[in-house]
Amino acid sequence: VAKDLVISYLLDCYGELLSEKQRNLAYLYYDEDLSLAEISENEGITRQGANDLIKRAEHQLRDIENKLGVLKNARVLKGISEELRNLSIKSDKDISSELLKLSDTIEKITDNY
Amino acid sequence: VAKDLVISYLLDCYGELLSEKQRNLAYLYYDEDLSLAEISENEGITRQGANDLIKRAEHQLRDIENKLGVLKNARVLKGISEELRNLSIKSDKDISSELLKLSDTIEKITDNY
Repeated sequence: VAKDLVISYLLDCYGELLSEKQRNLAYLYYDEDLSLAEISENEGITRQGANDLIKRAEHQLRDIENKLGVLKNARVLKGISEELRNLSIKSDKDISSELLKLSDTIEKITDNY
Repeated sequence: VAKDLVISYLLDCYGELLSEKQRNLAYLYYDEDLSLAEISENEGITRQGANDLIKRAEHQLRDIENKLGVLKNARVLKGISEELRNLSIKSDKDISSELLKLSDTIEKITDNY
């Protein structure tokens, strides 16, 4: 089974809210793509223990997203940032440069997520 | 000392991430503006206990905002939403209505925070 890419995004977004241990294991599993066997060996824990911690991290990340929706909003905002860039092409000079600036500001916010 | 209005905003934004007990006490203190004496009496805990729980909730809320910055970003986005509405007044009809739509979409996102 392919690892869920959504979890990588959620980890980027909310990883700091997890415990250091959970964040670390989830990072190795989802971002570094290590296997449970590799992680359990490196960390000196059982394969089952590694699996439990990673599953719990995954559950917490999804729960936080359900409550805050930062990732969902970031996607909407990325679309808005793009649309503003498109509209800037069709706009008069003054307005065009304002729209580009606003697009950039939105992009800076969504880049964090 | 006036209660910190920022905590009310943080509570709106991240309250669901607190335990039910902490959220409830912080809500009574910051949103309902009850005193520590009133809260401790209503909840059947000591004044000191109520104070500790509320302070811990406050600390957690600030910590989450430092890590995620949702409230800070929401403020920037509110400004962008307003600017888009201003720019729509100066724009041609087609672009104007697009800008208003984007402004509304941003407002819907920030209204949650």
